[in-house]
Amino acid sequence: MNLHLVLRQLGSLILVLSATLIAIFVGAFLLGEESIGESIRTHRYILETAGLSTLIGVVFILIGKQKQTSDSMGRREALLLGSSSYLVGGLIAALPFWLWAKESAGENHPFQSGVNCVFEATSGLTTTGATILADISLLPDPLLFWRALLQWLGGLGIIVLFVAVLPMLGSGGRKLFRVEGASAPGQSGVKPSIKETARVLWILYVCLTAILVLCYGFAGMSWFDAVCHSFSTLATGGFSTHTSSIGSFNSHLIDIIAIIFIVIAATNFGLYFAALQGRLRTIWEDPEFRCYIALLVIGSIIVTVSLMGSGQPLVTTTGVATPPTAGEAITQGVFTVVSQQTGTGFCVSNFDQWPFVAKAVIVFLMFVGGCSGSTACGVKVIRIWIAIKVLLDQLERAFRPHVVRPLKIGKSSIDDVVKLAAISYVLGLFIIFTFGALALMILESGNPSCDITTAATASLSSVCTVGPGLAKVGALENFNWFSDASKILMCILMTIGRLEIFAVLVLFSPRFWRST
Amino acid sequence: MNLHLVLRQLGSLILVLSATLIAIFVGAFLLGEESIGESIRTHRYILETAGLSTLIGVVFILIGKQKQTSDSMGRREALLLGSSSYLVGGLIAALPFWLWAKESAGENHPFQSGVNCVFEATSGLTTTGATILADISLLPDPLLFWRALLQWLGGLGIIVLFVAVLPMLGSGGRKLFRVEGASAPGQSGVKPSIKETARVLWILYVCLTAILVLCYGFAGMSWFDAVCHSFSTLATGGFSTHTSSIGSFNSHLIDIIAIIFIVIAATNFGLYFAALQGRLRTIWEDPEFRCYIALLVIGSIIVTVSLMGSGQPLVTTTGVATPPTAGEAITQGVFTVVSQQTGTGFCVSNFDQWPFVAKAVIVFLMFVGGCSGSTACGVKVIRIWIAIKVLLDQLERAFRPHVVRPLKIGKSSIDDVVKLAAISYVLGLFIIFTFGALALMILESGNPSCDITTAATASLSSVCTVGPGLAKVGALENFNWFSDASKILMCILMTIGRLEIFAVLVLFSPRFWRST
Repeated sequence: MNLHLVLRQLGSLILVLSATLIAIFVGAFLLGEESIGESIRTHRYILETAGLSTLIGVVFILIGKQKQTSDSMGRREALLLGSSSYLVGGLIAALPFWLWAKESAGENHPFQSGVNCVFEATSGLTTTGATILADISLLPDPLLFWRALLQWLGGLGIIVLFVAVLPMLGSGGRKLFRVEGASAPGQSGVKPSIKETARVLWILYVCLTAILVLCYGFAGMSWFDAVCHSFSTLATGGFSTHTSSIGSFNSHLIDIIAIIFIVIAATNFGLYFAALQGRLRTIWEDPEFRCYIALLVIGSIIVTVSLMGSGQPLVTTTGVATPPTAGEAITQGVFTVVSQQTGTGFCVSNFDQWPFVAKAVIVFLMFVGGCSGSTACGVKVIRIWIAIKVLLDQLERAFRPHVVRPLKIGKSSIDDVVKLAAISYVLGLFIIFTFGALALMILESGNPSCDITTAATASLSSVCTVGPGLAKVGALENFNWFSDASKILMCILMTIGRLEIFAVLVLFSPRFWRST
Repeated sequence: MNLHLVLRQLGSLILVLSATLIAIFVGAFLLGEESIGESIRTHRYILETAGLSTLIGVVFILIGKQKQTSDSMGRREALLLGSSSYLVGGLIAALPFWLWAKESAGENHPFQSGVNCVFEATSGLTTTGATILADISLLPDPLLFWRALLQWLGGLGIIVLFVAVLPMLGSGGRKLFRVEGASAPGQSGVKPSIKETARVLWILYVCLTAILVLCYGFAGMSWFDAVCHSFSTLATGGFSTHTSSIGSFNSHLIDIIAIIFIVIAATNFGLYFAALQGRLRTIWEDPEFRCYIALLVIGSIIVTVSLMGSGQPLVTTTGVATPPTAGEAITQGVFTVVSQQTGTGFCVSNFDQWPFVAKAVIVFLMFVGGCSGSTACGVKVIRIWIAIKVLLDQLERAFRPHVVRPLKIGKSSIDDVVKLAAISYVLGLFIIFTFGALALMILESGNPSCDITTAATASLSSVCTVGPGLAKVGALENFNWFSDASKILMCILMTIGRLEIFAVLVLFSPRFWRST
């Protein structure tokens, strides 16, 4: 294990955070009407965090440089860097919230508690979007921007890690569907370097964000809201600048733009990489993409029909109740299905009051998640698909133990190693979700708010980095009422889910740390 | 598919049921004080069922004989015979309950409903032990005996099917841990025939029952109760002749006898088979057996400690509340852990009021179940063990994709086929349990009794053939309040769980029915 290299790289990432914070301060100064002195006083928490994180970053780099080790990163280094940047990043990213509360907010502001700040920051960085805040509008703009940006950075990190870095390390970049999720299917021809792939990916990510900002802006959002919501959308995060989430704009146009870009963000970025190399068909030919779209469509139809069939009025997050006409049921139904399946967690309606069937479908789709190699979380469509095929195969083996039928997804056959990896992942997430729900029940056993639905969907929502769940963690609720222990547990669940379970759990394996 | 052979064999099994019913009538006549005419009038429902089932049995045999086909049974025939005998058997076994209610019971007796009778019979035959009856003592003795006997027959059928029949068909009797659960590990040397193995197994089963009857009898049960409870214990069923279950005897001696024999019944009968051939050590050397005992011990310790720690009085099924002294907590804790993990479902205490940790452990152990090749249900210890090993292996593959370490259970290495089978089974049971819970929630959506805990544990309890669950299906409750649709669903879940999922689900696979 090349710990020095990891420390150096981690230091660089922390410096990126500092630079971002300084940029935010400059932006706040330029856009505001205060003198530089006043600005420094108002936004002291930003500069303090920037200073501290620069210090930490430089120290990390210096320690990392003490011993001149090679620059070659192995699989273990990449995993350690990935998990430590989300864990350490969550701590540093929490500082602005905490310092701001100490300096400017009231005594009862939730951010007076360090755990709350870490929860909010981790929720952002892991693109979950679960919030501590009952009233988001009380935050100053730079903090709202910071919250949104954390998701965007977290999403970018995941794409780079799972599409550019991990698939090229250890297993030669060609092994599909390993722990890291599918790597870029377009890599079959040329094999670009990690740096080149990462560069293309982040340029693509920036371009998509820019386009979305324009779309949101022209659809009626203020430019500040447009930028923040674009960050949130492309990272499938879910933080909004408004307490009633994206529903506060009450605009079907904005809803539709959000739906389109969420679907884009939850698609394998490896496919876009291939498309950029001139193979546009790759996207539509990808079996996972087709299955993902099919799930979204089927889920939307079931939810919409059940909403219309129930006859109950649909209540938006702003409290407007409308009868379940086809138009309203389709918009709210499709938006919620897309938002929840991909783990975004933007809300336009209070779906906690929907019929049981609609809620069951939504919870199931939360578990499924989006495509591998995207900013979405959950099990990922491809793994669910492989798992279903394996189970059907087992059915036949019950009466024909000797017949071996090759298992195919699209045109590629799946070998036993991949089958085991996929089905283990599904089971692993099931187990972690169950464990999380039980642990929440135990931690909140004195709290009548935490019924089994709340605990179960809070756990699922954390591990699939969705954001809202049902009951007391529903669309209109927040996570402030949980005990500190539960919040820390959920931070761990979010990080585990975001880094695809094994990337975090390996840290607890003694073999991972052994030198050979 | 040799349908004629299956029909013939099914007919023979039905004739066995008829013969048993006639024996019950003779017994009731000899033990009673009525004249033969009075006896026939009182117990008409037995003779009617016996007559009808003889007719059905003979018709099945005649249809099956029309075409003289070979007597060689394949894997598919065995699976079809297994599943159809539990499904058809459940219908025929329900008749005495239904006819009795029509002839002698009050208008409001639950057995006036055919669905209730089928539920009770299926619950017996699948060794579940979930009952419709609020007051069991209203049933006449022959019906109480019939209820108990159904479990005993169901348990015997499972042992013969999964230890003697399936392992020897199709995969040459040597493939461990396939869908049928582990076959007898002792078969490594001589390979006995199916008939010979089945004969030894049922003699062993009868002997164990006889010993248990004596133990229960000398411990203070009436001989009738002793026989009925012995049937229930060895089949890990759970039907009692008393409304407050086995707790009604209020005897620690009986509790201890029950614990010992439940543990014996939930151990792989293949091990006893091996032990009978002079290899006594086989039992203790079996890794699954050791793990099973370890789970029981650890589970009992956690539950006992949490009971003592909670300080709340322990309430028995007869309503006696005692302070949680060490003695009381150990007896009730151990009994409940053993009874629930093995899927027996005998109750001595109202564990629904226990601390959350105790309940969580019990529910987890219900999912795990006993050993393969026993009358216990659940996932089975060996599969859980393999699944855990596979998941740990996946952890290492995350950072060392190329290292292949042989996965061993005891001394035998586990290949990919077995790994996939085990982990698919765990996932499959998880999915069926979740589906069952959701379906119950939907079917009972208008019923406030059916909260999520009730639905979840009713589903788990059915699919793991345990009997009692928590909340409204707890130790003191019954299943009568469910709608007919829910009851039918639970019958299906019990049969699926009892026949290890795939044996029932194959019936829905078109390939299963194809002639090749």
